[in-house]
Amino acid sequence: MNINLISDTVTKPSPEMLQVMFSAGVGDDVFKEDPSVNLLEEKTAKLFNKEAALFFPSGTMANQTAIKLHTQPGEQLICHEYSHIYNYEGGGVSFNSGVSCKLLKGNKGFFDAEQVVKAINPPEFYHSPLTTLVSIENTTNKGGGSCWDIEELKSIKKVCTANKLAYHLDGARLWNALVAKNEKPEEYGAIFDTISVCLSKGMGCPVGSVLVGSKEQMNKALRIRKIFGGGMRQAGYLAAAGVYALENNIERLREDHKKAKEIGEVLRTLTFVKMVEPIETNIIIFEIDDAYKTEKEFLEQLLKHGVSLIGMGEGKLRIVTHLDYTLKKHEVFLKILKNI
Amino acid sequence: MNINLISDTVTKPSPEMLQVMFSAGVGDDVFKEDPSVNLLEEKTAKLFNKEAALFFPSGTMANQTAIKLHTQPGEQLICHEYSHIYNYEGGGVSFNSGVSCKLLKGNKGFFDAEQVVKAINPPEFYHSPLTTLVSIENTTNKGGGSCWDIEELKSIKKVCTANKLAYHLDGARLWNALVAKNEKPEEYGAIFDTISVCLSKGMGCPVGSVLVGSKEQMNKALRIRKIFGGGMRQAGYLAAAGVYALENNIERLREDHKKAKEIGEVLRTLTFVKMVEPIETNIIIFEIDDAYKTEKEFLEQLLKHGVSLIGMGEGKLRIVTHLDYTLKKHEVFLKILKNI
Amino acid sequence: MNINLISDTVTKPSPEMLQVMFSAGVGDDVFKEDPSVNLLEEKTAKLFNKEAALFFPSGTMANQTAIKLHTQPGEQLICHEYSHIYNYEGGGVSFNSGVSCKLLKGNKGFFDAEQVVKAINPPEFYHSPLTTLVSIENTTNKGGGSCWDIEELKSIKKVCTANKLAYHLDGARLWNALVAKNEKPEEYGAIFDTISVCLSKGMGCPVGSVLVGSKEQMNKALRIRKIFGGGMRQAGYLAAAGVYALENNIERLREDHKKAKEIGEVLRTLTFVKMVEPIETNIIIFEIDDAYKTEKEFLEQLLKHGVSLIGMGEGKLRIVTHLDYTLKKHEVFLKILKNI
Amino acid sequence: MNINLISDTVTKPSPEMLQVMFSAGVGDDVFKEDPSVNLLEEKTAKLFNKEAALFFPSGTMANQTAIKLHTQPGEQLICHEYSHIYNYEGGGVSFNSGVSCKLLKGNKGFFDAEQVVKAINPPEFYHSPLTTLVSIENTTNKGGGSCWDIEELKSIKKVCTANKLAYHLDGARLWNALVAKNEKPEEYGAIFDTISVCLSKGMGCPVGSVLVGSKEQMNKALRIRKIFGGGMRQAGYLAAAGVYALENNIERLREDHKKAKEIGEVLRTLTFVKMVEPIETNIIIFEIDDAYKTEKEFLEQLLKHGVSLIGMGEGKLRIVTHLDYTLKKHEVFLKILKNI
Repeated sequence: MNINLISDTVTKPSPEMLQVMFSAGVGDDVFKEDPSVNLLEEKTAKLFNKEAALFFPSGTMANQTAIKLHTQPGEQLICHEYSHIYNYEGGGVSFNSGVSCKLLKGNKGFFDAEQVVKAINPPEFYHSPLTTLVSIENTTNKGGGSCWDIEELKSIKKVCTANKLAYHLDGARLWNALVAKNEKPEEYGAIFDTISVCLSKGMGCPVGSVLVGSKEQMNKALRIRKIFGGGMRQAGYLAAAGVYALENNIERLREDHKKAKEIGEVLRTLTFVKMVEPIETNIIIFEIDDAYKTEKEFLEQLLKHGVSLIGMGEGKLRIVTHLDYTLKKHEVFLKILKNI
Repeated sequence: MNINLISDTVTKPSPEMLQVMFSAGVGDDVFKEDPSVNLLEEKTAKLFNKEAALFFPSGTMANQTAIKLHTQPGEQLICHEYSHIYNYEGGGVSFNSGVSCKLLKGNKGFFDAEQVVKAINPPEFYHSPLTTLVSIENTTNKGGGSCWDIEELKSIKKVCTANKLAYHLDGARLWNALVAKNEKPEEYGAIFDTISVCLSKGMGCPVGSVLVGSKEQMNKALRIRKIFGGGMRQAGYLAAAGVYALENNIERLREDHKKAKEIGEVLRTLTFVKMVEPIETNIIIFEIDDAYKTEKEFLEQLLKHGVSLIGMGEGKLRIVTHLDYTLKKHEVFLKILKNI
Repeated sequence: MNINLISDTVTKPSPEMLQVMFSAGVGDDVFKEDPSVNLLEEKTAKLFNKEAALFFPSGTMANQTAIKLHTQPGEQLICHEYSHIYNYEGGGVSFNSGVSCKLLKGNKGFFDAEQVVKAINPPEFYHSPLTTLVSIENTTNKGGGSCWDIEELKSIKKVCTANKLAYHLDGARLWNALVAKNEKPEEYGAIFDTISVCLSKGMGCPVGSVLVGSKEQMNKALRIRKIFGGGMRQAGYLAAAGVYALENNIERLREDHKKAKEIGEVLRTLTFVKMVEPIETNIIIFEIDDAYKTEKEFLEQLLKHGVSLIGMGEGKLRIVTHLDYTLKKHEVFLKILKNI
Repeated sequence: MNINLISDTVTKPSPEMLQVMFSAGVGDDVFKEDPSVNLLEEKTAKLFNKEAALFFPSGTMANQTAIKLHTQPGEQLICHEYSHIYNYEGGGVSFNSGVSCKLLKGNKGFFDAEQVVKAINPPEFYHSPLTTLVSIENTTNKGGGSCWDIEELKSIKKVCTANKLAYHLDGARLWNALVAKNEKPEEYGAIFDTISVCLSKGMGCPVGSVLVGSKEQMNKALRIRKIFGGGMRQAGYLAAAGVYALENNIERLREDHKKAKEIGEVLRTLTFVKMVEPIETNIIIFEIDDAYKTEKEFLEQLLKHGVSLIGMGEGKLRIVTHLDYTLKKHEVFLKILKNI
């Protein structure tokens, strides 16, 4: 049995989702004539109580488009030093938008409103870049799937409003946060100017992300997506999977979270596990005792049992639970762990 | 009966293609683990006798990536004033690559080696942009689906080699040229540094283009695609359609060309049609006599019969035949035309 | 005697101008504390009846800043195919602003309002770049120092207003046009959003250009100039020359124009001169009969007499009169021409 | 008496320098025909034992050109979080070059070779920007005019060589380091690919910086300078000042350093001064005790005596000594300090 716990991006569509994809109505989305894409965009916008939405081939493109929407070349955005947009989007912030990042520090990928205030360059001091955007990630990927306190997000919103900064949410795993904290999408729609959400990962779609915002912003976003080459023809096959996921796979994330917590409990009983970070969603970060068992030894031993994880260096490892990590696999994995 | 002759981009997958798509093996292409994407890339590279290939969500992204591969900001590329990269890629040449275009004129979207020589800025004259790339389009879209003379393409290649210019082919409809001229992909692979080909349009796939080139170039292209946000997860569903099209839909283009010629013959018999451009592939451009029948009247009359075309302004109209324009539809349309 | 007729950029400050430069009050212009720079900016703004002005180390930077002010990456500007910004600013339009050029054709570097209307891409058609700027050059450099008809400039202004396009004037030799047509700077200030004027060339300063526009625009321009690295410390030595030129060297351009016309008259009497273009300001473009005397022979013969011109290729040559082309030199040159 | 200790950029040319400037031979540097510019470039290149040099209107433009020379869009450079290129060049790194910064921490603006090794993104991991440049600042401006240990610079050079990274030195105040550490320019020329040096600041010129490197790099730099609009016509007046400074003003910096140390000694005797950072060159950073005397009170009190400093926030203040801070002024200022 193959148990892949590397990332929730490895999920494949379920037979039900595939069936929906197969029978989707499609059209040429470049002419805005794909009914499945249109439906997905409408549903997602409505969910967040935003005017409009746009479908993208990737979360990176949704984020990069949002950043370009809110900034002009030479300006600066504020984000956490762990953020995906700074670390894992190929340097796109500078390539695509000509923008630099002011990096904030903080536990688990969080920062606070006070830090934002201090990070804003004085607008009249023209030697420094003009600060125009704050970008948040929820859940925080490098922060171990942690969920922001929505009150802190609102405090930061006030700073943005007072300083005329746009406010973007990279919601690659926002669904996990919503489920974990029992929050509603429209609460986030009310706080942020734009939000990107991913249909892959825990939602189980093969491809795609959606950006929500105002009608005017999405009209501009359409131009930017075109320039990146993100306009696809009969994209409805992919979008239909998204519609299915919105309707069926959000609540299901609770199972991933439950399994993650159970894995954490077992890990905590293992003698060579020094530390397990608090588990809020579907990501588990833990550290092993090199003296007793090295990271490499541990990974190899698991591989022999068909289990794949990734090491993060310096003794830290990461497990991600997801749709294709079934209850059956979970039971097997817990047994393997206990006997290691 | 709905007869859409607006563009060959409106085609939808056939039941056979759909079947192949949804039984495709998939994986996470971001980790290069999608077997269908890998197969499509290998097959396409081999077809053109190139080292490597990369799958893209659109022809625009494949072209934009190629332009970025071959240029640095501030440089200039040479292309036809009709070219898609200059006119219809959202200004991406300048946005994505910081590059300007030297525009050549010529019948049907063609130019010759002599024109290229004259268009190269002297490299030592640093006030003008450095010329580093020539980009060709075959068939020429705005030129009415015309096919380049391969000998002219070779002459231009010599100019490129002598002047250290890269040489890119926007092959959005290259398949049509190959079929119309009985040429082989590897002949083109031998001439150009990079070639983009489209799997949508006449090939009938829902989404996707492929760029071919050297291994080193495709490694760089992977970075650029990432930056644009063109990396997709389980893209194999789309890629499998491409594999199917390469195996089944190339020769089929002859039918589109035959139908286009037959439409042309009928158009030439109509009293209000002033001119029909020579038809080489699946695009028909013709002009009507405004005195007798205006463009608008003509389009409206056709719409009543369920037929959609697009006007190009100043009395010119365009018809594009394609996979979904069946023999049945063809017969109906010819009858409508004759009785108009 | 050395008679340099290659360009009016070769002029050196007169003893009077040098004296003024020498004794100029200066300060750190980066802190806006250089009194000579401030005075130059105030004077120039006032001359054009604009709110504000900014001093630049070159006309290229003044133009590039204006283009950046008025555009965003991916957009398109409309200019003449002869224009300096497209041909001789190193590809800066695309490098600095990510913008492409729609090139208009027309005699002597001119075009008309009707051409501008046709060149605007439909704003809702997002596949083409959004058109946002029209840039004019007066006098036209490659057009032989010709002066625009101010009524045509006003007609184009109407098109700009109706289509929300910004309107920039590259006035590298605007002073020559003002003198030749007896027009006033404020007439131009009322038409254009921004105007760049050169203090070098016929005005005789060693270095510098000034951009005029609204206060808000110049505040933004200050940021852009900083990013390009155009902020200079004690720039007052250069600015003081500009103040002197504004006060003393504008009317003087009439002499350059008069001399140019006299040279034209002599050229027209020479048997091997096929054509002399109408002379409006200080630039003379003429063509020689290759059968009788080649361009190279002619240039070499002149060089023996100490006279330098430049050939423009295909038998065409260019003469530019200027401040350092004294009456004495003029007499000698006319004599040489007559005896050639 | 007006005693300006805000920055060494406020210096004005001495009468001797002015004399040299205005008797300078000049020409059109755009055609490379200005003898004074050519002389300055030759002298500076020779000083650092580099093949070539290029004159710039500012240090910002020299740095920005170097960064563009060494990088391509999307790439990443490594620098200190205090560095001028990241903080005070208007966001130009991202605007001009599309490049992002990996920021290192460390006392006084320093970091070590080990930190550089860790900051390099793995070249095969295409999700992160490709690291291609390390940029150093000597003396460190925000680090209080501190001088790098040249052995550390050599260690970092080894890391650069091993990882194919370019290595740039922002030498805005390199002259101060050379004098303070008794080092020679050619030692730095042997370590770095490119070095920018400033002729303003302690060297006393009104305007200008010089970039040194290989002949091929400077040829490319000429294109980049053109694109930024940094090409100036008769720039020889400014360059002549630079030649004078190279010959007369380097050793003189010892006086500024001596005065700075003497100021430091007095500051250390003041009861409300909590801390004075070690003084290596001409910059003094000290902190006052807010309980006793606020920053604002202190600055206002000095202003009454005609003395200007700048506050750096949180009780820290900065003093910079320079050419125009004469011995007379020094004596007066020390007296004021003692009696405060």
